Amino acid sequence: VETTETASSPAEESRRFTEEEQRIWDSYLQAITLLEDHIDRRLQRDAGLAHGYYRVLVLLSEAPRRRLRMTDLAMKTQTTRTRVSRHVDRLEGYGWVRREVSGSDKRSHMAVLTVQGSEVLNRAAMVHADAVGQALLDRLTLKQQKLLGEMMEIIADGLHQRDAGASLPWLR
Amino acid sequence: VETTETASSPAEESRRFTEEEQRIWDSYLQAITLLEDHIDRRLQRDAGLAHGYYRVLVLLSEAPRRRLRMTDLAMKTQTTRTRVSRHVDRLEGYGWVRREVSGSDKRSHMAVLTVQGSEVLNRAAMVHADAVGQALLDRLTLKQQKLLGEMMEIIADGLHQRDAGASLPWLR
Repeated sequence: VETTETASSPAEESRRFTEEEQRIWDSYLQAITLLEDHIDRRLQRDAGLAHGYYRVLVLLSEAPRRRLRMTDLAMKTQTTRTRVSRHVDRLEGYGWVRREVSGSDKRSHMAVLTVQGSEVLNRAAMVHADAVGQALLDRLTLKQQKLLGEMMEIIADGLHQRDAGASLPWLR
Repeated sequence: VETTETASSPAEESRRFTEEEQRIWDSYLQAITLLEDHIDRRLQRDAGLAHGYYRVLVLLSEAPRRRLRMTDLAMKTQTTRTRVSRHVDRLEGYGWVRREVSGSDKRSHMAVLTVQGSEVLNRAAMVHADAVGQALLDRLTLKQQKLLGEMMEIIADGLHQRDAGASLPWLR
């Protein structure tokens, strides 16, 4: 019996970056690494919280009644439930978030933004916008910003499709 | 005596994202988070090493005599010396890297790629190129790739300038 299956696809066996592709990828990695570091440090220095925690507070503040199920929080931060749970532990320790058992589903837990968390967030939001503005947006023309947004949407959509129902971080 | 200094700049006090800026930033964060997760998982599944370790092996393989000072390794991965030292610890445990005292400067340590590390890297390089190709490069036109590279260079250059001599990760 013949089979067309092979251990790996031809693409996997032979793909190598061209010089130009390598250069694009190197620039991409440098930029995203330095930018994340920059934002994280600005937030820690001027608002007292790391970027990962900031994202959790933002999402809670935008949710109805300032609360989200842990699973939804993981999905919205594109991370695993384990990781988001550790973040909420820490934020609970600071008094910025509290956990609640869901009204409708007793097994599921909600994270709720506290008044204190909301105050921290107000200050942090300005620091964040300033850091992202200076390091990313203000460096690009409006046309470039628009193109960047379009490309990032294409990439995110592609990864959602590829991994849908399978192994996106929050489904693991 | 009057002073023009204030506690924070006007930009810091008032900056808020426009809706369009917020959308660009959200897409950016989604794309880079999902892409990093995708590449990391492909590497772990098909080559048995995390993305951070892969980058260290690549840099060593490209260096003269396949070795780099720890500080240079930190600089080239845009990370802190503490973090890169932890990575090398782990890679040493796998037998893929070994530490050596520098010939010229007895106080500084070098990380050296081993034969075994080189073999692991050969396999991983194809998995990596395939993952980045499918999830990023192949989703964009050649024109878009070029523009992305240019924008990422602008952003990385800006952050190098801003933080130069001060607080880039590898100088901390």
